[in-house]
Amino acid sequence: MDFAVSPKMEKILTKVRTFVREELYPLEPQVLNEGFSSVLPILEEKRAKVRAMGLALPQIEKEHGGMGLSVLEHGLVQAELAKTYTGVYCFNCQAPDAGNMEILIKYGTPEQQERFLKPLLAGKTRSCFSMTEVDYPGSNPTWMGTTAVKDGDDYVINGHKWFTSSYDGAEFAIVMAVTNPDAPKHGRASQIIVPIDTPGFTLVENISCMGHRGEGWDSHAEVRYENVRVPQSNLLGAEGAGFLIAQERLGPGRIHHCMRWVGISERAFELMCEQALTREVAPDRALATQQVVQTWISECRAEINAARLMVLQAADTIDRLGAKEARVEISLIKFFVPNVMMKVLDRAIQLHGGRGITEHTPLATFWRNERASRIYDGPDEVHKMSAGKRILELFRAEMARDQG
Amino acid sequence: MDFAVSPKMEKILTKVRTFVREELYPLEPQVLNEGFSSVLPILEEKRAKVRAMGLALPQIEKEHGGMGLSVLEHGLVQAELAKTYTGVYCFNCQAPDAGNMEILIKYGTPEQQERFLKPLLAGKTRSCFSMTEVDYPGSNPTWMGTTAVKDGDDYVINGHKWFTSSYDGAEFAIVMAVTNPDAPKHGRASQIIVPIDTPGFTLVENISCMGHRGEGWDSHAEVRYENVRVPQSNLLGAEGAGFLIAQERLGPGRIHHCMRWVGISERAFELMCEQALTREVAPDRALATQQVVQTWISECRAEINAARLMVLQAADTIDRLGAKEARVEISLIKFFVPNVMMKVLDRAIQLHGGRGITEHTPLATFWRNERASRIYDGPDEVHKMSAGKRILELFRAEMARDQG
Amino acid sequence: MDFAVSPKMEKILTKVRTFVREELYPLEPQVLNEGFSSVLPILEEKRAKVRAMGLALPQIEKEHGGMGLSVLEHGLVQAELAKTYTGVYCFNCQAPDAGNMEILIKYGTPEQQERFLKPLLAGKTRSCFSMTEVDYPGSNPTWMGTTAVKDGDDYVINGHKWFTSSYDGAEFAIVMAVTNPDAPKHGRASQIIVPIDTPGFTLVENISCMGHRGEGWDSHAEVRYENVRVPQSNLLGAEGAGFLIAQERLGPGRIHHCMRWVGISERAFELMCEQALTREVAPDRALATQQVVQTWISECRAEINAARLMVLQAADTIDRLGAKEARVEISLIKFFVPNVMMKVLDRAIQLHGGRGITEHTPLATFWRNERASRIYDGPDEVHKMSAGKRILELFRAEMARDQG
Amino acid sequence: MDFAVSPKMEKILTKVRTFVREELYPLEPQVLNEGFSSVLPILEEKRAKVRAMGLALPQIEKEHGGMGLSVLEHGLVQAELAKTYTGVYCFNCQAPDAGNMEILIKYGTPEQQERFLKPLLAGKTRSCFSMTEVDYPGSNPTWMGTTAVKDGDDYVINGHKWFTSSYDGAEFAIVMAVTNPDAPKHGRASQIIVPIDTPGFTLVENISCMGHRGEGWDSHAEVRYENVRVPQSNLLGAEGAGFLIAQERLGPGRIHHCMRWVGISERAFELMCEQALTREVAPDRALATQQVVQTWISECRAEINAARLMVLQAADTIDRLGAKEARVEISLIKFFVPNVMMKVLDRAIQLHGGRGITEHTPLATFWRNERASRIYDGPDEVHKMSAGKRILELFRAEMARDQG
Repeated sequence: MDFAVSPKMEKILTKVRTFVREELYPLEPQVLNEGFSSVLPILEEKRAKVRAMGLALPQIEKEHGGMGLSVLEHGLVQAELAKTYTGVYCFNCQAPDAGNMEILIKYGTPEQQERFLKPLLAGKTRSCFSMTEVDYPGSNPTWMGTTAVKDGDDYVINGHKWFTSSYDGAEFAIVMAVTNPDAPKHGRASQIIVPIDTPGFTLVENISCMGHRGEGWDSHAEVRYENVRVPQSNLLGAEGAGFLIAQERLGPGRIHHCMRWVGISERAFELMCEQALTREVAPDRALATQQVVQTWISECRAEINAARLMVLQAADTIDRLGAKEARVEISLIKFFVPNVMMKVLDRAIQLHGGRGITEHTPLATFWRNERASRIYDGPDEVHKMSAGKRILELFRAEMARDQG
Repeated sequence: MDFAVSPKMEKILTKVRTFVREELYPLEPQVLNEGFSSVLPILEEKRAKVRAMGLALPQIEKEHGGMGLSVLEHGLVQAELAKTYTGVYCFNCQAPDAGNMEILIKYGTPEQQERFLKPLLAGKTRSCFSMTEVDYPGSNPTWMGTTAVKDGDDYVINGHKWFTSSYDGAEFAIVMAVTNPDAPKHGRASQIIVPIDTPGFTLVENISCMGHRGEGWDSHAEVRYENVRVPQSNLLGAEGAGFLIAQERLGPGRIHHCMRWVGISERAFELMCEQALTREVAPDRALATQQVVQTWISECRAEINAARLMVLQAADTIDRLGAKEARVEISLIKFFVPNVMMKVLDRAIQLHGGRGITEHTPLATFWRNERASRIYDGPDEVHKMSAGKRILELFRAEMARDQG
Repeated sequence: MDFAVSPKMEKILTKVRTFVREELYPLEPQVLNEGFSSVLPILEEKRAKVRAMGLALPQIEKEHGGMGLSVLEHGLVQAELAKTYTGVYCFNCQAPDAGNMEILIKYGTPEQQERFLKPLLAGKTRSCFSMTEVDYPGSNPTWMGTTAVKDGDDYVINGHKWFTSSYDGAEFAIVMAVTNPDAPKHGRASQIIVPIDTPGFTLVENISCMGHRGEGWDSHAEVRYENVRVPQSNLLGAEGAGFLIAQERLGPGRIHHCMRWVGISERAFELMCEQALTREVAPDRALATQQVVQTWISECRAEINAARLMVLQAADTIDRLGAKEARVEISLIKFFVPNVMMKVLDRAIQLHGGRGITEHTPLATFWRNERASRIYDGPDEVHKMSAGKRILELFRAEMARDQG
Repeated sequence: MDFAVSPKMEKILTKVRTFVREELYPLEPQVLNEGFSSVLPILEEKRAKVRAMGLALPQIEKEHGGMGLSVLEHGLVQAELAKTYTGVYCFNCQAPDAGNMEILIKYGTPEQQERFLKPLLAGKTRSCFSMTEVDYPGSNPTWMGTTAVKDGDDYVINGHKWFTSSYDGAEFAIVMAVTNPDAPKHGRASQIIVPIDTPGFTLVENISCMGHRGEGWDSHAEVRYENVRVPQSNLLGAEGAGFLIAQERLGPGRIHHCMRWVGISERAFELMCEQALTREVAPDRALATQQVVQTWISECRAEINAARLMVLQAADTIDRLGAKEARVEISLIKFFVPNVMMKVLDRAIQLHGGRGITEHTPLATFWRNERASRIYDGPDEVHKMSAGKRILELFRAEMARDQG
């Protein structure tokens, strides 16, 4: 056991940290007040810088042009990038593209990789992932209304989805659709690549979420598939493997999310410390002198440390033993970490008083946008129940072994 | 002791409840998606209806055209109105006007009442209250930078304030300014009426809060006073009594706020129940069958009941013994109730899954807008400490009496 | 609505409060260090005093020699008595006797009342209630292993029970046993009176709970029924009505428990205040000057107020509409109040530091003994689920009515 | 970074785990029902076995006969030993002896080591540490009433202490007393070795804690020093260094405590799993099928993982950089871990229903005895404030550096 960050990673993290502070923090007032899209031209310059520094695509294997970091190492990078809203985008490791890259690398045919993956890695296109349905609970991913029926060489897709995030301006979607309705529950759906401009694939609206419709990468679309026709060669992986691939996508994806939330927590913590040291409650008496403030600082620090260590351990398990062996750990962090983040954000806002609810800091935006963290990729409650069941199964097996 | 609502109030509440559900709930999609101002013309019609039903100005004495309800009775009405964002406005009992009406009735000269109060009661104008300062903590209301200096028959006011809510479109502000800098701490400030169009009184901006600048009634202004000159006859109450009047304004005002938060909690609870009964987690298995959901329903119900009873008891104390005797109780509800509300909102959003963060329900807007409840009119922490000190003082006195 | 305690009750409460402080608090060191039984002789004197003051049996109708208080009024008395461990005993309103008195009054035959009830009311005997079983979950009271089979004029009872509290020294038990195994679930069991000295009715042990076996009234027995034969005339109420009577017994019984827990919370709160005012953290700096302490005082005060109001409202509902209408409220307080108590105890102990875990105050004993409050008479979780279901049913009915 | 336990430690832990389960778990019924002392003769046999296996004194350097484990490694062992009350004792690494061994090794003169340390290491004697005072708050260790005044070659000690744990049957105490009253606050006290049989050193009582006076090792004494005379050669370390040595003793000592609490949490977790899998709530429906139970399992697992990782990281920091650099981390775990433990115990008891409060499992004893964990060695609140201050200081320094 060794809790020290490796010298290699210390070096990378220092570079990333400096870049984020010096190049991206200054963009915040504009992002917070005028929206993500307003800084897009600047971000393309930043992306070029990042590529020039050799820091782009941290999560992608070297042979595909990335940094080739392990899951744990990439987690450490995510936590730095997440401190400001433009971080992951500038390093081209933002959801949903990062996950799509991973499955295209693993399951894409050479043609699919040439057409869809390469421009994505190069940062020339964006993509989306179309799974969640309006009329079916996201918490039960095997129950789905969208279908893809074979007709000649094509699939004909019909369905109604939402939270197809970043649809706006994307080149293609990877859609989950039922291809094998009579198969066992986990073998019914497939993943199919659908170019955005395919006829019948239409935007209902960018959903207004917490007061914002958003636009471009920073948006969540409600979409309809009405007799959307794509060649069967757009099938990603095996037919019926949609759920399996989705799971695989979600495993490390949850590590990324969790480390992003750790990073947001760290940023909120920094802001708390700054506010505590600089805001006075009475002449020459800073907030930092208040016992309640000192108490919050310790409590938040403890919980962020806990969250960080748990995520890194889960990442280490994936790196050493594979995502399947880390199933329980991944579920545990998927509910533990966003709860820590929301609590830290709550405290940070409270410490800022009126300022905390304004756009003078990123806290209010975090508060609005990150509430969703406890819902997507499996709500807290679903992860608690499924990890609980799994832990009890494993314990039963151990009991049987001890007694047998 | 009697926990039953009086027949008189039952009758009023039924009317209010029906009006809110039938006339105001249907406006929600427009309010949530297009903003409060977009429904303003419709709201003026609703206000006329409310006046015609004799339900306007519930908190105002009959001789001033109101319903003449007690603090407790008005609290019950607030809880119904608060279920939707347009409720209090339609009944002309919205902050900050309601509080301004109260102090103008109590402290206004006949001339002030004629010019400022009457149009306010009639719903023809709006007003704002200008206390919180950018550079001084709201939690320490005796420490203030804005000054009003006598010059001839006038006051000349200079200062920098924010969270001067509803400034946009208001007729006048009541401003807190230091008139007696050498007086003891609580006797330095006065309240002065400043018409919005007074030269030198300017808007810096409607502050962006939780992603919205808002407009009209639904906005929070940052303003500057630069040599703003008003006649000394605009002084409200005695010179140096500003803090005292503010306290008086805040006492019942906190009851109103707290019952509003109870109402919001009740609405969120209704939405939870509806969602639990209608959303399925699997074919023919509603959310309501889940133990975790049942547990949340009970926990939320218990906490809302607790909040409601505590507020009503505090209101009853004010009605029977005056606001001063209710000081501790008011502080207790000021932190207890918004925490209940935020927890209920959190649970309600979680139960709605993805829908909970969209504008399909008012929950997301409540989540963003009501976070401020734990900050304004004294943050949780300040109330906890001041009530704690006061309780300990009272206990010490009792101990001394017992032993003496 | 009226939150003021009636003058009649104020007078009674003052007497009770004074008695508890002056006569019973001084017994605490002995009770805490040497056990309840060590003060029994003194308690008999105190009981005589209480009877002489006309304060005994507060919950019992006047025609049976009690004070004839309503459920709400008796609740107020319980909260005073509960401040010290000997309170309820001295007023002869202690569990399980109080509940047994109530059902004997309501369901007992004249012969049963003569033989079992009268000496109980007179404080000459004690009794126990034998429901919970070793091998069946208390949370599912319709699932039970003890049987009573008719044989001639007798019932022959067989079973294995525990938490037959206060068996030690009791005159009789009221036992729940299955008499009608083929009836619907809620109609299988009956309540039967079993004199303690009936052959075959034996003590396995006074169970060691939280480190104590206890003795006399303050004990929890594990017992066996082996061919225990009692005349059928010992049946209490109708055959098969056991569950129903138990429910009835539990309704107001839960109010008593809850108000007892409110009383314990109040005592812990008093101790906190005393400690805060008298213990110094540094020369001339009492604990009371610490922000964290002030914060706790406020938080505890708020939660105790909440608990108290909720219990009184539930009591009021029982008084006005009957226990059935108060079902939801009773479940809500059954989990809400003991959680408040345990939190207040936790804080009170923490504030006392090392002293808090010693027998220098009653806090440590409360901590050990009252943990069970969240388990008996239905664990938190069972009440949360059952109240949740019931609330959702009622909401569904209301929705149907609104739409129909 | 590497989260895998080393093969060396895996091997040791397996041995320890097996020994604890097979040799010590079976002693629990007797320990819980008849007290620690009742198994003492058996424990001496177990100690011999442990020594024979080479597992005794895990925390002590090899040259002194121990296993020579690092702080982290010893932490892992503690977590296994703590699963049952006799664990640490059998491995001779129980408080307060373990801490006393450490400071005797570091500061003891050869004579002191010969006389006091050697028999302690050999398990032939026991010792106690006499710091906490009745009339001074343990949270402020520099404020102390006990004095040691030089007289001839002796110190003459006067004072009144409590929580001199394990005094009963000990060979000697190490006492903290003020020797230099005029020195700066942290330099006033010294540590002095006082044989138990020194005249004037008397037991007031074994304090009754949570219902038990205890005896032998398992006891907490209140003691008086009345003109207790010991030679000045009994001074441990330098005069005035008492506070410093105490701090040093507490650093790794807190790791041991924290890992012990992790171990207790793990045991409670095991018991929860067992109970969930074996107890039925209805015929053929185990508790494990309940969503609430699954949820608790996950939540407890997550929090125990968090606690464990945080302690191990702090241990690793001590091993790599020394205790001083780990100050913040040690404070964070000192409040975080016992809170996790108490929450897990609470859940475990709740899951066991009535059984949870009996001596059928060790849970009730843990509940009573371990509540003190949040008080001794610095109460939660003190650690939160001191770590908060320190974190803010470090942040201020970093801010200054960034800006400078």
